Amino acid sequence: MDGARPLSDADDAFAAALAARLPDGRVSRPEPGHLEEPRGRWQGRGGVLVRPATAEEVAEVVRACGEARVPVVPYGGGTGLVGGQIAGEGALPVILSLDRMRAIREVDPRENVLIAEAGAILADIQTAAREANRLFPLSLASEGTARIGGLLATNAGGINTLRYGNARALCLGLEAVMPDGRIWHGLTRLRKDNTGYDLRDLLIGAEGTLGVITAAALTLHPRPAGEGTALLAVRDPEAALDLLAMARDRMAEGISAFELMHRQGFGFLSEKLPETRQPWPDPPEWSVLIEVGLARGLDPAQALEGLFAEAHEAGLVTDGIVAQSEAQRAEFWAVRERIPEANRLIGAVSSHDISVPLSAIPEFVRRAGPALAGIGDFRVNCFGHLGDGNLHYNVFPAPGRSRADHEHQRDAIKGCVHDLVHALGGSVAAEHGVGRLKVPDLERYGDPAKLAAMRAIKAALDPMGIMNPGAVLRAD
Amino acid sequence: MDGARPLSDADDAFAAALAARLPDGRVSRPEPGHLEEPRGRWQGRGGVLVRPATAEEVAEVVRACGEARVPVVPYGGGTGLVGGQIAGEGALPVILSLDRMRAIREVDPRENVLIAEAGAILADIQTAAREANRLFPLSLASEGTARIGGLLATNAGGINTLRYGNARALCLGLEAVMPDGRIWHGLTRLRKDNTGYDLRDLLIGAEGTLGVITAAALTLHPRPAGEGTALLAVRDPEAALDLLAMARDRMAEGISAFELMHRQGFGFLSEKLPETRQPWPDPPEWSVLIEVGLARGLDPAQALEGLFAEAHEAGLVTDGIVAQSEAQRAEFWAVRERIPEANRLIGAVSSHDISVPLSAIPEFVRRAGPALAGIGDFRVNCFGHLGDGNLHYNVFPAPGRSRADHEHQRDAIKGCVHDLVHALGGSVAAEHGVGRLKVPDLERYGDPAKLAAMRAIKAALDPMGIMNPGAVLRAD
Repeated sequence: MDGARPLSDADDAFAAALAARLPDGRVSRPEPGHLEEPRGRWQGRGGVLVRPATAEEVAEVVRACGEARVPVVPYGGGTGLVGGQIAGEGALPVILSLDRMRAIREVDPRENVLIAEAGAILADIQTAAREANRLFPLSLASEGTARIGGLLATNAGGINTLRYGNARALCLGLEAVMPDGRIWHGLTRLRKDNTGYDLRDLLIGAEGTLGVITAAALTLHPRPAGEGTALLAVRDPEAALDLLAMARDRMAEGISAFELMHRQGFGFLSEKLPETRQPWPDPPEWSVLIEVGLARGLDPAQALEGLFAEAHEAGLVTDGIVAQSEAQRAEFWAVRERIPEANRLIGAVSSHDISVPLSAIPEFVRRAGPALAGIGDFRVNCFGHLGDGNLHYNVFPAPGRSRADHEHQRDAIKGCVHDLVHALGGSVAAEHGVGRLKVPDLERYGDPAKLAAMRAIKAALDPMGIMNPGAVLRAD
Repeated sequence: MDGARPLSDADDAFAAALAARLPDGRVSRPEPGHLEEPRGRWQGRGGVLVRPATAEEVAEVVRACGEARVPVVPYGGGTGLVGGQIAGEGALPVILSLDRMRAIREVDPRENVLIAEAGAILADIQTAAREANRLFPLSLASEGTARIGGLLATNAGGINTLRYGNARALCLGLEAVMPDGRIWHGLTRLRKDNTGYDLRDLLIGAEGTLGVITAAALTLHPRPAGEGTALLAVRDPEAALDLLAMARDRMAEGISAFELMHRQGFGFLSEKLPETRQPWPDPPEWSVLIEVGLARGLDPAQALEGLFAEAHEAGLVTDGIVAQSEAQRAEFWAVRERIPEANRLIGAVSSHDISVPLSAIPEFVRRAGPALAGIGDFRVNCFGHLGDGNLHYNVFPAPGRSRADHEHQRDAIKGCVHDLVHALGGSVAAEHGVGRLKVPDLERYGDPAKLAAMRAIKAALDPMGIMNPGAVLRAD
């Protein structure tokens, strides 16, 4: 960064100057919601809220901030879990909300392309695709609130990554405002385009530190002709991996989701959300929720029953239920989707969004429990997207104790889990991003050559360091 | 670039100094093959050939070049079509051949990962995957010679991009030597990893200008249970697009390739490769070669016959042949794959590797012919990967004339085709890359904000400008 001059607060004078450069009604004070985030670790301290209506207005905001050296924090749905949307320290920022830019500009089912502005809500994009008889497969718990600009900026994952890839894999082109206030008109809908460096994928996952995404060209997929869901009890995570390989051999790309759940999750549901209808009378230690979407001519329930029979025969699966109706499918998914909510109600001491190579999952699970037991007495809820090697490994107090009792152990817990992940060749920021939470982890575990390249790129594209300072990379 | 000091030649003194830093036998003079490229537009003038055996040796070479300000031109299989592998001007380079580093380090069918060194030949990678009952789907005409490092550096496309994506989509992680000589150990095999900027996708497609790829973790796919191929006569490109949409509605991801061929290609085959067995007694103006790979329980030939019946009923398809044997499938593909060879024997005045949005293909084809007719009397062979919007639109002399007769018109032809592509929102460098051939096109058609970002990134990561100078971006 051009660090000699510090950044300036977005104060009342700046707000007035900014308002004068924009149409009426764009500039205001932040609402309380803009200063909070879901896990309550960061707290904004004010600043100026700007809600532009066009990419040109976004560019004007970024130029004004550049001239005054005021930080810009892009704001989507506010659902991020790592503090990327809250500047808790440093100069007071402009909070640049994209919520006014929520148009879905175009849906082209023949080309399998949908063009959305950054503020479009994921569920609305899914609906628009469905109405054109297509699928936009990105799907995650916060889809009713999360906006596509933020989902791309954080390269969001979710439950269908196994089959369709993460947010990055679903984006063909971007329109974005660069830190110098220029608009990059990169809203291409091309499947092949090798005209120079991959600026699209650089902005995706940069969490607003290299520019502001204002619109995206997204990839649609055909909707599977038939879908089916099964809940299977597996012997252990090793058996779950063998089951995945078997399922792939039988159904190839047909597997849309492959979710692992530990018994602890069902216990938390009973404890905190007892109205949830539970599928197992007596939950097994490990369950797999598998969803398939198959082409015409194949019967999903029959395919799942065939898989169950073979896996049972091979000793991988001890019990199983193939959903017999849409209602039962929805019930299975409700269980999976309510686990994070039950977790929140229990109150985790430390949550870990990690990934390891698939083959290392059994070793990770085997070693993490005993390692944590050396720190204290905890309950662990391990669940997540097994097919992606992505587990949410969340650590909770023993019954009768609270997270406050373990506050002093949080760093030790995190270090214990992350050290193990790193030793196994994994990632300590699998699908939620780095934000502000994991900046120290990146410094500790990141590859030095990659970190040096990241810092050089940041300094080159944002020499004043105004774009979301403190996220991903430490602000000077 | 730090342009005040020019780059230095890789002369005999530098060769001796470099040899002293490496194990014996690494440094030599380039072979003639290292100074030529397939289309004969660039000619190398010498320099030093280095053939390192490890990433550490590559790093040593790059450091030595950095200290002496000698350019480095990475060299894979030498099959590139845009001159990226040949420095025809400027200081004499070190030609850094990866051909010694051709090991396939690991194949893990359960994880669907293959780790290959940069010099591994694509066909060898395909074979290693097949032997593990998996598919590495990247496939293109030069697969017997092209090396994975170069294929990734150019983000190669080919015939299966429609289903599996381009080279970028098939790469999980990279090991690379950065321009400062540091090794980035990014050979992750993770499906989800959001630890900072996407350096992988930045190096992929950068054509060796931001670092040297030394190894890659690649994604394997399940092998389809059954494959089928059909050759269909379509009314026009518009009908071909409708056929593609219909095929997707019926078979979803099952479609692996969807290739368009104009009658001209069959004519060139008759003229120059008459031993090729032609499927059509009287070729229609437009043919589509469609390949499907389906899951267990589905019969590919039956599925293709069902598609043919529906498309015929709808008036999209006038005639068709569904391959009835592996031999007939191979015959259909031989036709498609020999068209580029026939083109070379005819001798194109100008070849264009372009893409446009799918829906713009009919308009492109409709307008390009008359526009070219305004320049002169030409034969056009239009063929390519219709499903990706990627056409090879190649312009040939009329019968009895030679490319030399039209040399003076080449720029006008190229400008005519590329202007139209650009006006339709397309790309003038779809799958072959920019290399040295298309640097002026990038300057003419590229987005200014993106170009500025590219130049800033290049200057930040390679401040001396030693990495493949003159490729992608103009050297200072």
